[in-house]
Amino acid sequence: MLTTNLALHTDKYQINMLYAHWIHGSHTRKAVFEAYFRKLPFGNGYAVFAGLERIIHYIQDLKFTEQDIAYLAKQEEQYQPEFLELLRQFKFRGQLFSMREGELVFPNQPLIRVEGSILETQLVETAILNFMNFQTLIATKASRIKQVAPHDTLLEFGTRRAQEADAAVWGARASYISGFDATSNMLAGELFDIPTKGTHAHSWVQIFDNEEEAFEVYAEAMPDLVTLLVDTYDTLKSGVPNAIRTAKMLEAKGKKMVGIRLDSGDLAYLSIQARKMLDEAGLDYVKIVASNDLDENTIFNLKAQGARIDIWGVGTQLITAADQPALGGVYKLVERERNGVMEPTIKISGNPEKVTTPGKKDVYRIISSGSRRAIADYIALSEEDNPNGNGKLILANPLQPYMQKTVKHFEAVSLLQSVFKDGELVYELPNLTSIRAYHQEQMELFWPEYLRKLNPEIYRVHLSTTAWAMKQRMMEEHMEKDSED
Amino acid sequence: MLTTNLALHTDKYQINMLYAHWIHGSHTRKAVFEAYFRKLPFGNGYAVFAGLERIIHYIQDLKFTEQDIAYLAKQEEQYQPEFLELLRQFKFRGQLFSMREGELVFPNQPLIRVEGSILETQLVETAILNFMNFQTLIATKASRIKQVAPHDTLLEFGTRRAQEADAAVWGARASYISGFDATSNMLAGELFDIPTKGTHAHSWVQIFDNEEEAFEVYAEAMPDLVTLLVDTYDTLKSGVPNAIRTAKMLEAKGKKMVGIRLDSGDLAYLSIQARKMLDEAGLDYVKIVASNDLDENTIFNLKAQGARIDIWGVGTQLITAADQPALGGVYKLVERERNGVMEPTIKISGNPEKVTTPGKKDVYRIISSGSRRAIADYIALSEEDNPNGNGKLILANPLQPYMQKTVKHFEAVSLLQSVFKDGELVYELPNLTSIRAYHQEQMELFWPEYLRKLNPEIYRVHLSTTAWAMKQRMMEEHMEKDSED
Repeated sequence: MLTTNLALHTDKYQINMLYAHWIHGSHTRKAVFEAYFRKLPFGNGYAVFAGLERIIHYIQDLKFTEQDIAYLAKQEEQYQPEFLELLRQFKFRGQLFSMREGELVFPNQPLIRVEGSILETQLVETAILNFMNFQTLIATKASRIKQVAPHDTLLEFGTRRAQEADAAVWGARASYISGFDATSNMLAGELFDIPTKGTHAHSWVQIFDNEEEAFEVYAEAMPDLVTLLVDTYDTLKSGVPNAIRTAKMLEAKGKKMVGIRLDSGDLAYLSIQARKMLDEAGLDYVKIVASNDLDENTIFNLKAQGARIDIWGVGTQLITAADQPALGGVYKLVERERNGVMEPTIKISGNPEKVTTPGKKDVYRIISSGSRRAIADYIALSEEDNPNGNGKLILANPLQPYMQKTVKHFEAVSLLQSVFKDGELVYELPNLTSIRAYHQEQMELFWPEYLRKLNPEIYRVHLSTTAWAMKQRMMEEHMEKDSED
Repeated sequence: MLTTNLALHTDKYQINMLYAHWIHGSHTRKAVFEAYFRKLPFGNGYAVFAGLERIIHYIQDLKFTEQDIAYLAKQEEQYQPEFLELLRQFKFRGQLFSMREGELVFPNQPLIRVEGSILETQLVETAILNFMNFQTLIATKASRIKQVAPHDTLLEFGTRRAQEADAAVWGARASYISGFDATSNMLAGELFDIPTKGTHAHSWVQIFDNEEEAFEVYAEAMPDLVTLLVDTYDTLKSGVPNAIRTAKMLEAKGKKMVGIRLDSGDLAYLSIQARKMLDEAGLDYVKIVASNDLDENTIFNLKAQGARIDIWGVGTQLITAADQPALGGVYKLVERERNGVMEPTIKISGNPEKVTTPGKKDVYRIISSGSRRAIADYIALSEEDNPNGNGKLILANPLQPYMQKTVKHFEAVSLLQSVFKDGELVYELPNLTSIRAYHQEQMELFWPEYLRKLNPEIYRVHLSTTAWAMKQRMMEEHMEKDSED
């Protein structure tokens, strides 16, 4: 960004609504919004929540500068000066609840809940969605890749194809949360303390008279960290033999070459042949890195074909989430203040899955006391008791509520964390290593059938009977009103 | 971005290569790189170049901070302090040539050419590609949308689904270059002076007791700029009738409602019915805005179905270029200094279309003196004479060079602009209005068959016979060397 001040990183309709509320005198009324998505990306069985650190900084720094105010004063809407003064004084003083970064999350459950005046809850919608949608999308894509290569080293290499600079650095961070081991982006490394990795490009080889000289010069410069790109001319006839000569030269100095990198051609065949050549030369310690438009499907297939690849450099497909480049997260009003009292709101749609679930809600993960695995998620109104207090819990299928099962012997873990309280940050942001470890722990809570890449079992998200009944009642009221018209 | 300092927004392998060159003493040798893409996105017939303003600021501000240097000092590569001192003193002192923003560009032609020391030309690769790839991609997508609705108003509405903040604001700018009329993103408006537009959300309606009240309050607040979202409950039974009542209320005050917005359902049917209802109420001046996952194909089809939509709000599909979210632009070495003399370099590949074209090159657009339309593009080595001096020009098909045609009566317009000369900015960056106008002029240079959305005619990019012969010779030399091995 040209600026780190993001107060105006919002849609104009937010400002217009705030203005109209202010004119009407309703801007200080309370409202509750929830952010969620309706459909999992990539046909995956879960998503990995990310974006909270970015959102926290955004909210903390949320302040209209004099330049912003001057810009707003020039708009065709001709906002009144008193309204601009209100914005000049603006500070977020509301509540924000959020999933932890690295959490496994599912459709139609609140990932973020914002409570406060209409002014503050409405203003932050656009940026929250922008950050949550992208970072959750990339963390989810990275997790799919991690699933097919759980024991290999995974490197995020996508910067040049990322959708601008923020996508590169925040995408590198999201990938790291889901188990990637390093990024090539040095700025992401500097900002977030993510390990960085890099070898050399084709241009390194081209700039010398021949490949062997290029390899030697590189090995002399960084003898402890030599990974050589072997496909500039011909991988098996030239690149690998020259790399072997370089490795031997290093051995003579008591050093060990780290690896070779394949970046084109049939990676299964080439890696098998290269492995054989390296092993025959006594270089079984030299790793093979592969790159070239990889994603979870190509990696899965290469492994099925017996590819001998230890380290995967993943670029475009990951950093843009190429097969589904947007998560359709939305931010919906669930409660409003009316005559001083909070009451639930519903948004009706001709599309049944787009009807919102009214009321302020909490999300519980129901863990079996026996297996210590997650059974299902359970959404209840915040005013309901924590289901842990009950001896048993009825889990009704949200679409077919007559399908019920009862669970006993469980722990209900509340997932939404209090992040801002009356505008003050009350959440201790974990460091990235802890976030990564938390994510790994959460993955282990789930039976593998929910996690598999292709046709995963559907993990259920249930509504409490109270929340379900309220939704039904409000839908019916709406339908009756509609028939009266 | 958390920071506006982008020196470390680069891949680690760039730093490693610089370091190895420095150890070897080759970092000050001269090199020439060219950035280009091999394949047009979306099956389009052309791309729209964008990203130069961002690249100019990046190069101007390119400086390693003390924090950056401290971070580099901690890397496992253990770069020597003298190398870090070199980086601390770094300033780009080379040459940069670029297409103008808004230019129509084609595969395998240099869009940006960078000349200078290996140090400076290699360091900037990653960021240049990151900016050029994304902004050119979005400008191209926006141009496709503009082509199907040339006389309608187009609004960029994608921020909440963009791939983070930079993508939202730079994507808004790229869309504006290609003919979009406004964006919803206020920060893009502030930074680039792009017109901004916005109405209200469903939450505006939900927060009041009923839709009619919600509309009235909005109209009272902003009587001159009322566009009402009519699908919160039921578009034709509730939304449009309430909007008509509001419009009449405004008329009584001597005001005219601007429009209504449709955001769900069958936009063709709903817009036709809504138009009829508005017209029957004497509100033929009220515009109809549509949004909801639109792209060039849905807009084209809606228009074919007779939809009565005046203004299109385009979000996710545009801002992420959803059907192809990355442009595969590359940055390749074309010349290197050897023993004090510049010589061309080639990168061979098993994939014929990936073989690079050696030598420093210029791009000419060949304009017919008769029709004043573009005939073809022509790439020549920079050392060749400007083809304008010749009485005629031989255009050989680059893949089948025996297919030639000769043109006379033409003007050859050189497309690459000198932007940095010895590190100094020598290019006067046009304002965005001029860039937009330039783009429109360029579109008019092309016959419509090259511009159509589906199966466009292929616009040819020819190589000069000199450049072609040099490429053949270098490929042959490589093959001979290969056979000798």
